[in-house]
Amino acid sequence: MKRLPDLLLILPLLALAGPAGAAPIGECLPCHREKTPAAVRQWEESAHFKAKVNCEKCHGTDHEKMLRGEARVDQKVCAPCHQKAYDTHRQSRHGMGLHSGWGCTRNLPNRDPRECAFCHEEGSTAPLSGVQCARFLKQSTEMGEIGCNYCHNVENSCASCHTNHGTDLKYVRDPISCAKCHMGPDHPQWEMWQTSLHGSLFTTYGEKTGPTCQTCHMPGGSHNVSFGITMSSGGIPYAADKAKPAREEMLGVCSSCHATGFARRELTRDDAVQQQSLVIVKEAEKIVWDLHDHGLLDPMPANRPPHPLSGAKLVTDSQLLYEDTSHIERLLFKMKKYDYARTIKGAFHQNPAYTHWLGNAELKMDLVDIKAEASRLRSRAVVPAAAAAKIPAASREQQLQALKNKVERGAISPEEYEREKAKILQEVTGEKK
Amino acid sequence: MKRLPDLLLILPLLALAGPAGAAPIGECLPCHREKTPAAVRQWEESAHFKAKVNCEKCHGTDHEKMLRGEARVDQKVCAPCHQKAYDTHRQSRHGMGLHSGWGCTRNLPNRDPRECAFCHEEGSTAPLSGVQCARFLKQSTEMGEIGCNYCHNVENSCASCHTNHGTDLKYVRDPISCAKCHMGPDHPQWEMWQTSLHGSLFTTYGEKTGPTCQTCHMPGGSHNVSFGITMSSGGIPYAADKAKPAREEMLGVCSSCHATGFARRELTRDDAVQQQSLVIVKEAEKIVWDLHDHGLLDPMPANRPPHPLSGAKLVTDSQLLYEDTSHIERLLFKMKKYDYARTIKGAFHQNPAYTHWLGNAELKMDLVDIKAEASRLRSRAVVPAAAAAKIPAASREQQLQALKNKVERGAISPEEYEREKAKILQEVTGEKK
Amino acid sequence: MKRLPDLLLILPLLALAGPAGAAPIGECLPCHREKTPAAVRQWEESAHFKAKVNCEKCHGTDHEKMLRGEARVDQKVCAPCHQKAYDTHRQSRHGMGLHSGWGCTRNLPNRDPRECAFCHEEGSTAPLSGVQCARFLKQSTEMGEIGCNYCHNVENSCASCHTNHGTDLKYVRDPISCAKCHMGPDHPQWEMWQTSLHGSLFTTYGEKTGPTCQTCHMPGGSHNVSFGITMSSGGIPYAADKAKPAREEMLGVCSSCHATGFARRELTRDDAVQQQSLVIVKEAEKIVWDLHDHGLLDPMPANRPPHPLSGAKLVTDSQLLYEDTSHIERLLFKMKKYDYARTIKGAFHQNPAYTHWLGNAELKMDLVDIKAEASRLRSRAVVPAAAAAKIPAASREQQLQALKNKVERGAISPEEYEREKAKILQEVTGEKK
Repeated sequence: MKRLPDLLLILPLLALAGPAGAAPIGECLPCHREKTPAAVRQWEESAHFKAKVNCEKCHGTDHEKMLRGEARVDQKVCAPCHQKAYDTHRQSRHGMGLHSGWGCTRNLPNRDPRECAFCHEEGSTAPLSGVQCARFLKQSTEMGEIGCNYCHNVENSCASCHTNHGTDLKYVRDPISCAKCHMGPDHPQWEMWQTSLHGSLFTTYGEKTGPTCQTCHMPGGSHNVSFGITMSSGGIPYAADKAKPAREEMLGVCSSCHATGFARRELTRDDAVQQQSLVIVKEAEKIVWDLHDHGLLDPMPANRPPHPLSGAKLVTDSQLLYEDTSHIERLLFKMKKYDYARTIKGAFHQNPAYTHWLGNAELKMDLVDIKAEASRLRSRAVVPAAAAAKIPAASREQQLQALKNKVERGAISPEEYEREKAKILQEVTGEKK
Repeated sequence: MKRLPDLLLILPLLALAGPAGAAPIGECLPCHREKTPAAVRQWEESAHFKAKVNCEKCHGTDHEKMLRGEARVDQKVCAPCHQKAYDTHRQSRHGMGLHSGWGCTRNLPNRDPRECAFCHEEGSTAPLSGVQCARFLKQSTEMGEIGCNYCHNVENSCASCHTNHGTDLKYVRDPISCAKCHMGPDHPQWEMWQTSLHGSLFTTYGEKTGPTCQTCHMPGGSHNVSFGITMSSGGIPYAADKAKPAREEMLGVCSSCHATGFARRELTRDDAVQQQSLVIVKEAEKIVWDLHDHGLLDPMPANRPPHPLSGAKLVTDSQLLYEDTSHIERLLFKMKKYDYARTIKGAFHQNPAYTHWLGNAELKMDLVDIKAEASRLRSRAVVPAAAAAKIPAASREQQLQALKNKVERGAISPEEYEREKAKILQEVTGEKK
Repeated sequence: MKRLPDLLLILPLLALAGPAGAAPIGECLPCHREKTPAAVRQWEESAHFKAKVNCEKCHGTDHEKMLRGEARVDQKVCAPCHQKAYDTHRQSRHGMGLHSGWGCTRNLPNRDPRECAFCHEEGSTAPLSGVQCARFLKQSTEMGEIGCNYCHNVENSCASCHTNHGTDLKYVRDPISCAKCHMGPDHPQWEMWQTSLHGSLFTTYGEKTGPTCQTCHMPGGSHNVSFGITMSSGGIPYAADKAKPAREEMLGVCSSCHATGFARRELTRDDAVQQQSLVIVKEAEKIVWDLHDHGLLDPMPANRPPHPLSGAKLVTDSQLLYEDTSHIERLLFKMKKYDYARTIKGAFHQNPAYTHWLGNAELKMDLVDIKAEASRLRSRAVVPAAAAAKIPAASREQQLQALKNKVERGAISPEEYEREKAKILQEVTGEKK
């Protein structure tokens, strides 16, 4: 299996060049001012330019490799000069196995063998990250690239937040730079911050008065964005031994503005919202499993494409799918991935509309819908399954009418119509005999 | 029942201190610069600081009480100095019984007795507000606090908009300060204003050219935000004797920019949209009541937790619930609370996408869904109810299979499996005898 | 049929006045400073004021006509001075038949005959635009005005983007001016741009660093906003002979910042996302047609109000309705109009959350829901249709109970109750005889 050897090539170069070594930039600029004008412009306005960190420093000198897209500038290229940022980044969720799907590309028919380097050290088959993502495995390569890896490359690429050639901290200190990924139905942290008291103060006064994402989650410039978090990324509370010190960490941040007692009461209340919401989710999961155990899901796992990780089994944990599944499981997906997440994240970000209307109310309506679908499925179970699974047999006339509809709207040719019609009529004759 | 006596303590102090009386601030600051730095910083930058309105003026001097959270600074603390704002606020919806749930906390198992003061004058059992909110009564205390009262405290607390220690009008004149509450699926006034012509002009030019929430709803600095409104907060048009003068009031605001004739035509058109939308809602309500009257809701009110205000009855008015209800009622909830509101508020705020796609189109799709569910429920009615309500009896094998599923995935222990299996088989043997 | 003759009146005036001719503005201002203060203020701050383009220049001098609302300032009034903008506008979708519904007003009972001028040249019955919109035809006049024409007047009115009296380019160069129409569930280009890398750079740095709508879609100030687009407004890819040159056009824009090879790879990937998404849509359409052909839609086209353009037929093309339809067709509407559009527009605008969660994931969940509804409809087909269509006959007691419910909650009077009850009992007696 071919692996990306570019780091091995680049690292010695970095060592030779040293932090302020000027490389022969003259060779790149004449062409690249034409070919990638924004990159050159951004670099010329950057701290890298001032510090004489030139193209070669990050990209190396093997132009053929660059053209093949193999000279990727990942976090290890940045680390030697930005060691503290790198180290704290690696301690955070951003730096650990977040790129869920990369490691799974071996299962894809048209994968790029260079992707191996995202989960394996050169020469090793041991995964750097054990995370596998069933949702990623269901995607096309293209959707996986834009829909998954565009954000989940944060593990490997500092440019994911900092942009490719800019170094200005104004951009990465603005929550809009986080919004690129932290938005949408599953984790709308940007939206809920923007319309919270914290965010509204930022809109009016800027970061001095209005706390940003960075103020609370990257205090003192730390890149450990998981600092002070007391639950997994799927919203499962940590055990006390892990949660307690994390809570104290976060309270340290809160107390730079608020009385600690006030902040503790707020966060404890949010914990309660989380626990109450989880009870609702568990009730829904139980309903789905009961239907499964009685063979009433429509379709059952055995009658649909297998789950990429678990095969023909029901999966309701964090690997729950939203495709090739039953209606009730897709309702559970919405409940867990969207509405549970919004309720608890809304609470911890002090946003009443996200906590209640876009969170809790949706969560409870999901439960109503899941119970209703369960009732329908149980009710259908009294109808003989064989009859329900197909169009009723007594519909010869219906078959002929359907055929007539098709030819009339041009979906089949008159010849096909005659052929199919003859087939149906022959069956009738056959039966009569 | 213990009530909050703090106002009685504070008011004489206020009288003594007078608008410019300097209190001994020195006692608070040394500690609070450490403990609540943002509060001190904001106060020091405030008009209160300049006018020598010190900590004691609003918070009193009983530190024990403050620590117990009883020295709440509500609107009556602000009123003596801000009488006009207080008076106009009290005339508006913001000042009248909006905090729907507060008065109902007596029904909650773990309520805080201090909450009584939000609905009762000291020593009186007569409610200040007759509003009771079924949705609030269904909430946990914690969800009620963040999901309901965070916004609905606007009746009692000037800080709800003005923040606790800031006095800068720049903040409260920016629509983002309204967004904290006036957003989301039920009343996204902020979102629809932001992307309207009015809001887009504000984004580019600021409030001089782009009218804000405050421009139209708080003209001349009035705090009567219900000025010029011609419908209830549930979207029911006022009777002509109330609606007509309100319309003329609003036209007075419009005509500070627009020709009155133009504005009148626009608002009259919006009235028509409101009336047409209400017809759709009424059609849906009728369908739900017909199903109810024929005993076809699933579940019927008798078979679910009682409505907090009405018991085991169908409720489709403004106390309609989104939880512990049937699927078709929850569809009606979405229709009334979200889509009807968005259609008419979208029209009055001149936002085509909210009026049509996020309003009218959703409203009409709700009706399609409600009719479809009604058809399903009627169709199921031909299946004997007893059979539909439970898993078909002829499923002994299914029961054994379900049990096997459970042990295989570790949901029950092998011992539990054997015990349950034996029970089922015994029943068979019992039946055979 | 009366037509708008105002252009014939205005055009000669324009010719006489010339670009810098000062008209007797003094007559308008004294009144209009009072009556339309914002209009006067905006005009006084405009380039028109500086260039002595006065009221008469655009509005003519027939005040009676203005009061009747007939002196509409459409694009042809602007064209003589802004020929290049007019010409390029006319080449774009903005300038061609976008105002889908205008041409159809002859079908409305209460149409305004002046609207004819939006689709017909004076004295001609040939439509300028052949577009007819079934969704518009279903709307009330008022909803059509605010919900449809507020945006779709872009064909006729420069003011649709530029505002009525402002000429400042700062406004129309800000994407918020596009947001007024290009937002919401069907085409949230503003939202997806705002939270993309392009938009986030704009938020931090402004248009110099962050590309706007205008940067890519109106390069060099061209008003041909369809420049470089490779698909129809319904998301159907153009044939290669049209798509290829358009793609090269857009790459020319991309390459003013990016390497062309990079941009081509990105856009090619987005094409793949489009094709894959279309396959999902086609699968759903097939399911709906199969149900239709077997007479299983609920209700079938014959049992509901006719489609405004196609009558009692199933329509799943771009004229698909969201009202007076079956549940499964309304699911298809959501899929095609909202989720397909968001997936592909999200990809082309480099927004991962819109491409995946708000696009692709919704698209696939739609398919799950459509299959589930199809399964329900097929399953119901085994229940005799006659029985399913009505409340079961054996429900005399239910009828009496329903009647009792109604009188108890005050929906009918006691007299009506007795009358209706007698009727039901009489039927029983009648049957017994």
